[in-house]
Amino acid sequence: MTTTDPDQLTVVADAETPVFALHRGGKIETVARKPLRDRADLSLAYTPGVAEVCLAIAAEPDLLDVYTGRGNTVAVVSDGTAVLGLGDIGPGGAMPVMEGKAMLFKHFGGVNAVPICLDTTDPDEIVDTVARLAPTFGGINLEDISAPRCFEIEARLRERLDLPVFHDDQHGTAVVVLAAMRNAAKVTQRDLQGLKVVVAGAGAAGVAIAGILRGAGIADIVVCDSRGILVPGRANLNGYKAELAEQTNPRRLSGELANAMAGADVYIGVSGGQVPEPVVASMAPGAFIFALANPTPEVHPELAARYAAVVGTGRSDFPNQINNVLAFPGIFRGALDVRATAITEGMKLAAAEAIAACVQNPTPDEVVPSVFDERVAPTVAAAVARAARAEGVARA
Amino acid sequence: MTTTDPDQLTVVADAETPVFALHRGGKIETVARKPLRDRADLSLAYTPGVAEVCLAIAAEPDLLDVYTGRGNTVAVVSDGTAVLGLGDIGPGGAMPVMEGKAMLFKHFGGVNAVPICLDTTDPDEIVDTVARLAPTFGGINLEDISAPRCFEIEARLRERLDLPVFHDDQHGTAVVVLAAMRNAAKVTQRDLQGLKVVVAGAGAAGVAIAGILRGAGIADIVVCDSRGILVPGRANLNGYKAELAEQTNPRRLSGELANAMAGADVYIGVSGGQVPEPVVASMAPGAFIFALANPTPEVHPELAARYAAVVGTGRSDFPNQINNVLAFPGIFRGALDVRATAITEGMKLAAAEAIAACVQNPTPDEVVPSVFDERVAPTVAAAVARAARAEGVARA
Repeated sequence: MTTTDPDQLTVVADAETPVFALHRGGKIETVARKPLRDRADLSLAYTPGVAEVCLAIAAEPDLLDVYTGRGNTVAVVSDGTAVLGLGDIGPGGAMPVMEGKAMLFKHFGGVNAVPICLDTTDPDEIVDTVARLAPTFGGINLEDISAPRCFEIEARLRERLDLPVFHDDQHGTAVVVLAAMRNAAKVTQRDLQGLKVVVAGAGAAGVAIAGILRGAGIADIVVCDSRGILVPGRANLNGYKAELAEQTNPRRLSGELANAMAGADVYIGVSGGQVPEPVVASMAPGAFIFALANPTPEVHPELAARYAAVVGTGRSDFPNQINNVLAFPGIFRGALDVRATAITEGMKLAAAEAIAACVQNPTPDEVVPSVFDERVAPTVAAAVARAARAEGVARA
Repeated sequence: MTTTDPDQLTVVADAETPVFALHRGGKIETVARKPLRDRADLSLAYTPGVAEVCLAIAAEPDLLDVYTGRGNTVAVVSDGTAVLGLGDIGPGGAMPVMEGKAMLFKHFGGVNAVPICLDTTDPDEIVDTVARLAPTFGGINLEDISAPRCFEIEARLRERLDLPVFHDDQHGTAVVVLAAMRNAAKVTQRDLQGLKVVVAGAGAAGVAIAGILRGAGIADIVVCDSRGILVPGRANLNGYKAELAEQTNPRRLSGELANAMAGADVYIGVSGGQVPEPVVASMAPGAFIFALANPTPEVHPELAARYAAVVGTGRSDFPNQINNVLAFPGIFRGALDVRATAITEGMKLAAAEAIAACVQNPTPDEVVPSVFDERVAPTVAAAVARAARAEGVARA
């Protein structure tokens, strides 16, 4: 797979595996929604007829979302710095993921999504570039941008644009984790807000998970990075981690992950670091373990099941797959349906509740719906649209 | 059409004309090219399978155009400053045109095209923004950007990117004009290179037309703007017009348009300024008149026919419609097919020859093919690909 010789490329094509065969030529395309059969069609869709629509939009900008596809189109923006678990592989390497995301947006949410992979990793340049695309897109889904740059980039775009801006690696994951925790609490008859939670990983997902759990009223959250527990005054705390340390860890625990795990009710792994069995065993009885690293969960689900009441992973071959696809299509569908000017905390909380409610009778092996459950996205969309109206960010 | 009240919008919808009805919800959409039926499909198109493709591209960037849609996708970029004949109506107002263009790209050229309307008119910002989109798009079609900014923006992007960059308002028009002139010369048994040509209009199209005609070996070209003939030393000549004055007008004519028209063989109007009948009458016998302003040609075709052997306009309701759609789909199709690093002068000349050759037996009323002639784009594509190889800019 490492040749530029066209003849060699042909050889690769002959021998290509199903995954490469599927990707040949790309996974998405742009097609016409209207016919173009003759001069009459052409004169409506293009000159001279189109001029009337252009002038109407120029006079009344709100018509842009009515008479073009913008109101149902999002940009899936990446700089390729944190692609899946592969790290910084560049914007070209990120393209197949963004095309896959675009497929999922359309399939589950009916949203047109366009990959936008950027040849820059500079936050100022990314913010400026994306902000300049605002006339084209009704929403911005940030994807696979490394921490801590992703926090600043999202915050600045939210500030600058009256559009839904959503970093899926943060908030999509956080929404689905909260949905799973809601049903795990229900099935084990626990009080969600009283749970003692450990979040292992202080990157994009970890920070957002801590944020949404706080928003859901959970008070005892301890976040760990590779150096151990985040606590005020610890060495090696950069800006956002120092802030997170202040906002969490009410018991002011310190030291290594094991200190946080002793007696904890919930472990949420978004780090990839393996957790030794004795540490898992030190959790409170009836614990929840969500070990989301792919392909190797932080705690193997069979090991986790020995000590926990509910176990989830990011994998499709074990029960309780925590997968962002349960969240982002419905969240954007709902936000676009009401022309929301932002995606608020309340909209994310509503999305988590809606995902959880899609499981009518949760069991330990089913705290989240299947990713192929067609009811999820419409249910999430309706809840998000309602929340947007309630929070005053809906324009329709 | 000027209300933000949703109820009022509904009223507009009830009463909307066919052109607004056709535009409702937009004219294009993004769809999947591959199935997404079950977990097996999902695991190939998205995680975990996609990771293998990402890594292959990261290791060998040339595979980006093989295993994503990039190699068959162009950005249709506008800042909304020169939309059709409507002027500077902004990027939102430009969107319906760019969507229409995207329809035409796909219909005639099989090229995926994505509108990119930018919220900036600053050339530096436009160049930087478009250059950062290069990992996403296999080509850049600039559209409806006002002169003289369009010259600088195109030149800088051509310099910076190893991609086809093409300002259609310049070169698309120029290619089709040259095609029409080739057949007009053939049908009137004139020598193309010996024709005396007047180009009325020194904006994007006028400059490019003068350029391609020079490239085709025509020596006697006189360009006029609203102040008259471009001649070295004239007052009110900005940078690019001064350069154009040096390169054209070998007889060093000066003064008003009428001075250039006396005895001229060809009039090409890309200005909108009306030409009085006595000035038309002063042209040489057997002249060609291409009056391209829309909707009102600089010379009405019935008037033109009294004095000229061949008459063309930009309109579909008269013979010889000079329409860019004859050029850009085939030009990009050919450039993408060979992964060209640029669109060269030779490729444009080849496109003009190919368009002309699509009319087997040209007559005064048929010097260009119909815009719905399905043979045109493939013929142009083949010629452009051949020229790209001959000029050393093909990578495949």
